Amino acid sequence: MRFLIIGGDAAGMSAASRAKRRNPKMEVTVLEQTSDVSYSACGMPYNLADPERVMDELIVRSANVFIEKQGIDLRIGHRAERIDRGNKSVLGKRVDGKTFELPYDRLLIATGASPKRLGIPGEDIPGVMFLKLLEDGRRIKSYILENKVKKAIIIGMGYIALEVCEALSRLGIEVDMVKPRPIFLPWMNQELSSVVKDEVEKNGINLHMGLQIKGIERNQDKLRVYCDDTVFDTEMVLIAVGITPNSQIAEDAGLELGPQKAIAVDRQLKTSDPEIFSAGDCADAFHVVSGKKVWNPLALRANRAGWAVADNVLGSKVELEGVAGTAVFKVFDLQIARTGLNPREAKESGFDPVEIVIKSRSRAHAHPGSTTIHVSMTGDKSTGRLLGAQMVGSEGVAHRINAVAVALHAKMSVEDFYQCDLAYAPPFGPVWDPLLTAANQLRKRL
Amino acid sequence: MRFLIIGGDAAGMSAASRAKRRNPKMEVTVLEQTSDVSYSACGMPYNLADPERVMDELIVRSANVFIEKQGIDLRIGHRAERIDRGNKSVLGKRVDGKTFELPYDRLLIATGASPKRLGIPGEDIPGVMFLKLLEDGRRIKSYILENKVKKAIIIGMGYIALEVCEALSRLGIEVDMVKPRPIFLPWMNQELSSVVKDEVEKNGINLHMGLQIKGIERNQDKLRVYCDDTVFDTEMVLIAVGITPNSQIAEDAGLELGPQKAIAVDRQLKTSDPEIFSAGDCADAFHVVSGKKVWNPLALRANRAGWAVADNVLGSKVELEGVAGTAVFKVFDLQIARTGLNPREAKESGFDPVEIVIKSRSRAHAHPGSTTIHVSMTGDKSTGRLLGAQMVGSEGVAHRINAVAVALHAKMSVEDFYQCDLAYAPPFGPVWDPLLTAANQLRKRL
Repeated sequence: MRFLIIGGDAAGMSAASRAKRRNPKMEVTVLEQTSDVSYSACGMPYNLADPERVMDELIVRSANVFIEKQGIDLRIGHRAERIDRGNKSVLGKRVDGKTFELPYDRLLIATGASPKRLGIPGEDIPGVMFLKLLEDGRRIKSYILENKVKKAIIIGMGYIALEVCEALSRLGIEVDMVKPRPIFLPWMNQELSSVVKDEVEKNGINLHMGLQIKGIERNQDKLRVYCDDTVFDTEMVLIAVGITPNSQIAEDAGLELGPQKAIAVDRQLKTSDPEIFSAGDCADAFHVVSGKKVWNPLALRANRAGWAVADNVLGSKVELEGVAGTAVFKVFDLQIARTGLNPREAKESGFDPVEIVIKSRSRAHAHPGSTTIHVSMTGDKSTGRLLGAQMVGSEGVAHRINAVAVALHAKMSVEDFYQCDLAYAPPFGPVWDPLLTAANQLRKRL
Repeated sequence: MRFLIIGGDAAGMSAASRAKRRNPKMEVTVLEQTSDVSYSACGMPYNLADPERVMDELIVRSANVFIEKQGIDLRIGHRAERIDRGNKSVLGKRVDGKTFELPYDRLLIATGASPKRLGIPGEDIPGVMFLKLLEDGRRIKSYILENKVKKAIIIGMGYIALEVCEALSRLGIEVDMVKPRPIFLPWMNQELSSVVKDEVEKNGINLHMGLQIKGIERNQDKLRVYCDDTVFDTEMVLIAVGITPNSQIAEDAGLELGPQKAIAVDRQLKTSDPEIFSAGDCADAFHVVSGKKVWNPLALRANRAGWAVADNVLGSKVELEGVAGTAVFKVFDLQIARTGLNPREAKESGFDPVEIVIKSRSRAHAHPGSTTIHVSMTGDKSTGRLLGAQMVGSEGVAHRINAVAVALHAKMSVEDFYQCDLAYAPPFGPVWDPLLTAANQLRKRL
């Protein structure tokens, strides 16, 4: 059995390692166009913030380990360009220009995602950066050090943009953030998002929303970003306006695509061709609340899906339930977390959403050091079902959200969630956990 | 409708406030034998540690507020001694020695619990302390300050004993801890409990297990604790060997008792007399995993049960699902949490338990400041059901346990829990949350 994998990041290498571990005789080949495999991409913003650490610390396992220790036929510098489903082979080009064609019995497309481009002049000039690959991280880090960058513009205000803004700020760089759309964190309840916005601004970041970016020019060692009626002079630009799935190769092969052109997969991670699987940031998933397809390119799903593909290629029948859309990130002193559907998404999925927002405390009455925890919680008026939650606070947010995530997987009602026996001790929260207080308010409204 | 409540702490005052809020015309009378109502008992160990703060900061609401603002007929210094179910009245004695008899239509017994006594000579001499009531907290705090206590013995090693040992240690007091049973935290997996034990000892606390305590004597300003073959000279003794429900008044009235002589209540908090309710540390509860009665005297349940009693007295029909036995405490740099059944409890409840223990990290690969998180997880071999978990670590434990608690309420299998989409970001954990890693190991064993 020849198991061929396109893409050597989280999903691809998880699948390769697991397949080889479970069946050492299987021929497992991985095609990776860069020379980096198995690194913690999510760690890049944090690594950027620390000049003492090299970006390569984020490498979990080097290519050699996969090849020599695990017996995986890992081919770096191999860019897959076309899938020939009739011949069951993948054609492509090596970094040295030579072409290749490799046969498969089972194929995994784990091509990941790429940063969205703005389609403006100047997007490719030196000093204009994207952050997705480890090589991007290395490039940004060395650019900052070599050019002693003191001013930067970040285009975009999503979670990667915010994580990087904190990193740059910690390096003493003055940061302006610009985005074309007028709303800060539009997926978030506005009361909560304004807490995040305040925190970012309190840390000296200048936010400019609703500005269309027209182009970027370089003038010696300076960059100039042209917006509607404003011009920013700066030394580095990061474009972080979202990512898009690398699904072109699948589309060209006639495979079905899902939301946002992610590669459509069933619960066994099979594409519309049952001999071709897809996993990782290029593939879609079922949402456990809506039951609908979503594109939710996050690390846990990529790893989980990689394992499931290996198991299914080996003949097990593993089905993944899906994602709840659980996510957390940190910006300055705030933890920001979400899971499930927000009211807009809930409405789009046919629910009748009711959302409440509460403020609670991170520690018990009279316990020193307590801070505010903001919770939004959404339920379905017609069924009483819990649909989602969002939280912001400086402690006790990141792991608390998981309680709601589990409740969503269990399809709990708000009433049932309210009955849950959550942990209490004065250093860690009030007697009524902020999530229970939210559930209590919400159940009264349903 | 005359709603009479015995006991003015968490459960009693929650019930009184809610009843009065929902129906201001209801006659709500509370009998409290001390003069303190509505305080954060769990905060006492933390308050002890800080000489700058007075114990009374833990009072959430004073008696006057309940009386004047809320219109509750709160009678402090009133000790209830007997329930006359025939006459539907409660008889007792006031602090001034006068007796009283008060009629009820509905009665709530919220008498709480008392520290267990050792039954040894010297248990009542000055300098020998118990910690349950706010008055106990005040007494310990002033005793330490007035006597400039530099050495103390704590008898018992449960969570209150451990919280107080940390508090005393922070005050510069040298602490020895003694317990009669030979095992440290016997409810805990031994690999995890040894981590806690090491932390306590690392902080200079001397632990003596398996020592029978024979008596305590006072000699001028010193105390002497006599054990099997050892004698401890010390300046203060805290006896913290557990608590026992204050159910005598219920037993005398012929009401049914449950585990450990807690007052037996149904899901509506009714005792065996449908006109008498019980809530708080004196009452039992259903365990959501075993379905059996347990005595689980913790703050959230007390508050929740108080509210439910008020609702039921007012004619609603509120049923409480029960407790999962979720608990968390902190000792020095460790967070210690549990929920559900441990293997011994699971076996006693008729399950076929399998337990696994794993070590994971509190932050992602290559993220600085990561520490070890220890997880034990127990599942049922015959059904695959998740039965419980325990965690120890210096961060990311207290709120993480709630994900398991919710899964227990939902009666999830280990396999289902493993499928949950938990949050990931490098500062907050590895891609595979420690709980998912544990679930993955456990499902392989089931």
